[in-house]
This record gives sequence, C-alpha cells and structure tokens, in this order.
Amino acid sequence: MNFIIKKELLLENLNNVSKAISNKNIIPILGGVKLDLSEEGLYLTCSDNEITIRSFIEKKDIEKINNKGSIVIIGRYFIELIRKIPSDLIEIITDGLNLTISTINGEYNLNGMNPDEFPDKSLELSKNLIKIDKNVIKNIINQTSFAISNQESRPILTGINFKIKDRIIECVATDSYRLSKKIINIEEKIEEEVNLVIPGRNLIELSKIINEENEKIEMHIFSNNVLFKFDNIIFQSRLLNGNYPDTSKLIIIEPTLKIKVNTEDLYNAIDRASLLTSEKDKNVINMEIKDKEVVISSTSQEIGKIEERIIVEKDNNVLLNISYSSKYMMEALRTIKSEYTSILLSGEIKPIILKSTEEDNLIQLIVPIKTF
Amino acid sequence: MNFIIKKELLLENLNNVSKAISNKNIIPILGGVKLDLSEEGLYLTCSDNEITIRSFIEKKDIEKINNKGSIVIIGRYFIELIRKIPSDLIEIITDGLNLTISTINGEYNLNGMNPDEFPDKSLELSKNLIKIDKNVIKNIINQTSFAISNQESRPILTGINFKIKDRIIECVATDSYRLSKKIINIEEKIEEEVNLVIPGRNLIELSKIINEENEKIEMHIFSNNVLFKFDNIIFQSRLLNGNYPDTSKLIIIEPTLKIKVNTEDLYNAIDRASLLTSEKDKNVINMEIKDKEVVISSTSQEIGKIEERIIVEKDNNVLLNISYSSKYMMEALRTIKSEYTSILLSGEIKPIILKSTEEDNLIQLIVPIKTF
Repeated sequence: MNFIIKKELLLENLNNVSKAISNKNIIPILGGVKLDLSEEGLYLTCSDNEITIRSFIEKKDIEKINNKGSIVIIGRYFIELIRKIPSDLIEIITDGLNLTISTINGEYNLNGMNPDEFPDKSLELSKNLIKIDKNVIKNIINQTSFAISNQESRPILTGINFKIKDRIIECVATDSYRLSKKIINIEEKIEEEVNLVIPGRNLIELSKIINEENEKIEMHIFSNNVLFKFDNIIFQSRLLNGNYPDTSKLIIIEPTLKIKVNTEDLYNAIDRASLLTSEKDKNVINMEIKDKEVVISSTSQEIGKIEERIIVEKDNNVLLNISYSSKYMMEALRTIKSEYTSILLSGEIKPIILKSTEEDNLIQLIVPIKTF
Repeated sequence: MNFIIKKELLLENLNNVSKAISNKNIIPILGGVKLDLSEEGLYLTCSDNEITIRSFIEKKDIEKINNKGSIVIIGRYFIELIRKIPSDLIEIITDGLNLTISTINGEYNLNGMNPDEFPDKSLELSKNLIKIDKNVIKNIINQTSFAISNQESRPILTGINFKIKDRIIECVATDSYRLSKKIINIEEKIEEEVNLVIPGRNLIELSKIINEENEKIEMHIFSNNVLFKFDNIIFQSRLLNGNYPDTSKLIIIEPTLKIKVNTEDLYNAIDRASLLTSEKDKNVINMEIKDKEVVISSTSQEIGKIEERIIVEKDNNVLLNISYSSKYMMEALRTIKSEYTSILLSGEIKPIILKSTEEDNLIQLIVPIKTF
C-alpha cells in the first residue's frame, strides 16, 4: 500500500470509525483500524464485534495512489499520530506488516496486524430499507437512550425497542423504573411489520457520528443485525435477542389530574432540591400538589431540608403528594424543549407522565417511589 | 445571625475559602465553612489543618445586618446551594445550629455545627513581612510546583524551598529526578535570612485564588507556618520540617555543549515521540545531537518507532546521545515562554539544563535516563 492523502480528510474519517475501536485488550486486532486501499478508494473499518463502522474515501478524493493493499493498525496510536503530525499531506507506505508515514521532519513506523485476522463482517445492504431524517434518528436516540437499563441482569432492557408498522416507528426505552417513548412517522409505508431491539449504547455511538445536515439515513434490517447507511459511512450494530416487554398498558390514557408547569422553573427547582438527595437513597424528592402551586421538597437527616414552590395550572382541584427520583425527573425534563410541560398524574403510586405541551409524540414516564 | 448579602459577593468569597475545605470525611467540621458575623463584617473561614483560608467581607458591603453570630455549615452543600439559588440577594438566618436561607419561592434549611469546635488557627500577622508582586508569586508556583515529589517517602521533597536573603528569593522544587529553580528580586532588603519549605500542593491552591491584578501580596513567615495576605484574604499554610537538600552543585556552570532550539518545535516533536512511551517505562525518549540537527526518537517493541528531526544552533561540534523522560521534558518546556530555548549539556549522564534564551532567572534541570 502506498498513497498520499489530505491529513484532515483522513482524520475526519478515522474519528468516525474510531467509535467502534475496542477498549478491551483481550483481542488485540479489535483495537485496530483496517485500511483497505482498492480500485475504488480507501475503506477504513473498525469493529469491536458489537458495532462495526466502515467509512469510505473515494479514489478521486485521494491525492495519489501508487499501490493498493490492506493492513490493520493499532487504532489509538495511528489516530493520535495522524492528529499530531504537522503536515497537510500524509504519505502512507506499507511494507509487509509495517506502516510508515513520512513527513519533512519525521518518520513514523507503526507495527501492523494481518488484515485476514480482522473480523469479517458482511456489510451488505438490504432491499427493504427504511429512510429516516438524520435529525429524527438523533432525536430518537437523545430523547430515549438515557432510560435504558445498565444492568446486564435483563439484557433486553439495555436496548431500545423499535416497532415499525406501516408508516409509524415507535421507539421505547425502559429500565423498568422509567420509560421513554417516541413515535415518528416515515414517508414510505413499509410492507413487513418489524420489531427489533438495538443496544442503546451502540445507538449512542451512532448519534455521535451523525452530523446535523438535513439528509436521510437508511436503516437496513436483518435478522441478527441492523445497518445504518449515511454519507460515506456504514454503521452496523448487533441486535438483542428476546422479547421486549409490552409497556403499552403502563401509559394511562385518562389521568386524574393534569398540570401545566414552566419546564425550566421545574427543572431548576428539582436541581436545587436534588442537592440533598443521594444515589444511595434513590435520589428521592417529594412533590406536593396544592391548590395553585406545587411544593418540591427534599430532606436529609444529616444535611437539612429544602422546599421550593412553583405556580402551576391545574385542570381540576385534585390534591396529590408524590415522591420520585430527582435524577430520573431531571433526565426526562431535559428532553422536553417546549416552554411548558404537562404532567399527567393518576395517584400517588401510579406512573407520572411528562409531555411537551407542544408535541404529542414524546412521552416520558416515571414510576413513583413509595415513602413512609 | 441574621443578614442580607448580594449572592455574587458571597459566592466569590466562598469560592476562595473553599480551597481549604477537606475532602476527607474523617473530621466532619473540617468539611465546613465557618461564618463569623461581627461588628466589622463577615469572616468566612475554611481549614483542613493543612491550609487555612479566611476571607473578609466589610460591613459596608453587606446589605443589612440584623444580628451577629457564628456557625459552621457543611461547605459543599452551602456553596452549591448559594450558587444555584436564583436570587440576587440572599437572607441568611440562624437559629441555634440551624441555618435558613429564604427566597421568594424557596426555603433552604441546613444543619450547622458548633463554631467552637472549628480549628482555632491564629491568623496574626508578623511585623517582618515580605512584599512580592502577585504575578511573581503565581509565576514561581506555576514554573516550579510541577517538579515537586508526590512520594510521601521523602516528605521534604513534596515542598517548594524558599531561600530569602537580602533582596533575593531563590525557589527550588525537585523530586530528585528533575529540578526547577526560580530566582526573583524583591524591592525591600530583608534583615534576617530565611530558609523554609512550603508544601507544593498548598501553593498550587494559593495560585488558584490569586487574581491577575497588579498588586502586592504579603508573605508573613513564622516558625511553623507561613501566611499570605492579599485583597481581603489570608491564606495560611503549614511548613514542612527538615532540611531541604542542597542542590546548588547539580547545576553545572560550564556545560560542554550549548544548543539553541525553537521551543514550540521541540515541544511538539517530543509530544509526538512520547506517543510510544509509557509511564511504566519512565516515558523514555532519545535525543541524538548531530552536526546541525537533533534527532528525537522513541521505540516500542509492540507499537513501532518514531523519529523526528529539528534544526538547532550549536556553540561547538560536540556530538551527544542522551535519553530522558518525555513527560519531564514537556513539563519543563511548558514553563519557557520565549521563542527559543537554550539546552545546556555536559555528557550523556549529566543533568540536562533548560533555560529561556530571554531570561536567566529560571532553570529547569532534568536527570537523564541511562539506556542500554
């Protein structure tokens, strides 16, 4: 392999694929980035067996190609070196399993690994694909992924459930104490109903490399994996096996009480009250719904007591006293971008539902904490 | 205690004293901030027994004083709360060992501790004081403190040695593998010679609260502690006991070879070469001094080899090959603000000396590493 390429172009593509570099040192080749220089151009691939990312640089964007070839290079060092080399153009030459970068003042030799040992992931595309706007996919991930479970005891809950039918995609994430649900419409009707669970952590990595440009992303679904195609990138994630729990009954359609509150005021009041809460005590804070206001309070024997009052609008005169995790409430509120939030309540031990007052397709649900 | 104060004024003063809040939970009162509201104004004090910081807010800057008094409040929660309260004015009321902050929408109660249990540090001033410019003290700390030892096996080396005689202060920090020495002149001649060792970590905290204003800082020296007075702040640090090693012989006056190199080029070349070095292997890199250039190189069996060339000016044609820690060299180079750096060499196992080409009062010394 022997070619010359613009540093910034190479670095940008390396940064994208680097999200799939394994941090574990158990299988060294998974810490590598594979370079494939072919007739068409340069393929860069990383895979930690969870996700595989491939980025493609067209022949026409490469300054000069003298020799084709393949090699796997330790990703961490290769990327850091490319980042730090003070040169606009970079010449990469391989000799067997050695890679050399030459600049006017320096010569950098990196040991390579055999490309045949790199995981051979099929990155074929499907004929049945779903097209979604990039910013819609980014929003789905940002507004639901925080609610996935981190516990490996119920692996299925570490994923985000995508149910696709006709022109509707329903996305759900839950750790069984809270739930995020986002419903979106797609332009083209899909023929076969789809129900899949994608690891949430993988989707968070995906969201990091999707830029804000107003374009489509293609979703190609297979039995064991899903593949996202956009720009010059293919992002593949494995799927989680198992049945995702049916959460539809959790969302109460006719709540006892609906209150309207300024989103930022509520967030800041909970933020202050949360000072006295701790992970150990489930971050519990109390919300007492009075006639025209809500009193947010938290108490710690050792530290003290905080009480905040917020004016709210109510649709009836029901009074309620409900406790919940300040952390969960703040994470849910962060996804609501409208000035006001609707809080739907059905009792002291019934799920709390949060919605934007301006859009109906996002639901945040939090299970209260029983206190004595 | 009962008073009203501007939030920003209180917060700024709390941030300054907070550097002396203990993070260890062994003695709870050391995690506190002591509030003393007296005739003259409000004293805020924190002390972790290593350092004590007292800040004073004059009566005229306090909006309203209704009642004097003292209390100790858990610093972490008190400061975080003051920071987050959405109010320009803050009313603080104590009732016994309870502290209450009231705003329009909230009431915040914090448990206090008995001020009599707070460490009673004498913060008396001395008649024999030394006046130094604020930015000079900041520079001394920034240019030497990184070279202190982190090992408690030789506690004296965790400090910075100040030797003061006539109109000269000589500051030295060393971990026995490298040394930083800064010499400054003061305006007034001091009568008695002083030799003291101040814990480096404490000085780093001091440098954080010294602002950039062009004023003097007073240094009051006692047998067991030193006290810095500036603005409305008194900063007290304990001193380290024991004799600081005599390092004067380490600095070779007549080196065999003097080279002049662009500071930034050298720093960046070492930064890149250091990619292949590791803490485990003492971050060793090699520097080969040739006729008109220096070759910086590093090698790792597992990763590869980096070689960088930099053009240098030499005062004679001596050739040398010397190895050292890339980390130490980079930390030393960061203190040199001039375009060019002088490197003074006396042999492959003799200390490397770095100096700015523009000022003579800062010396950075690094002991080479023997390689085979």
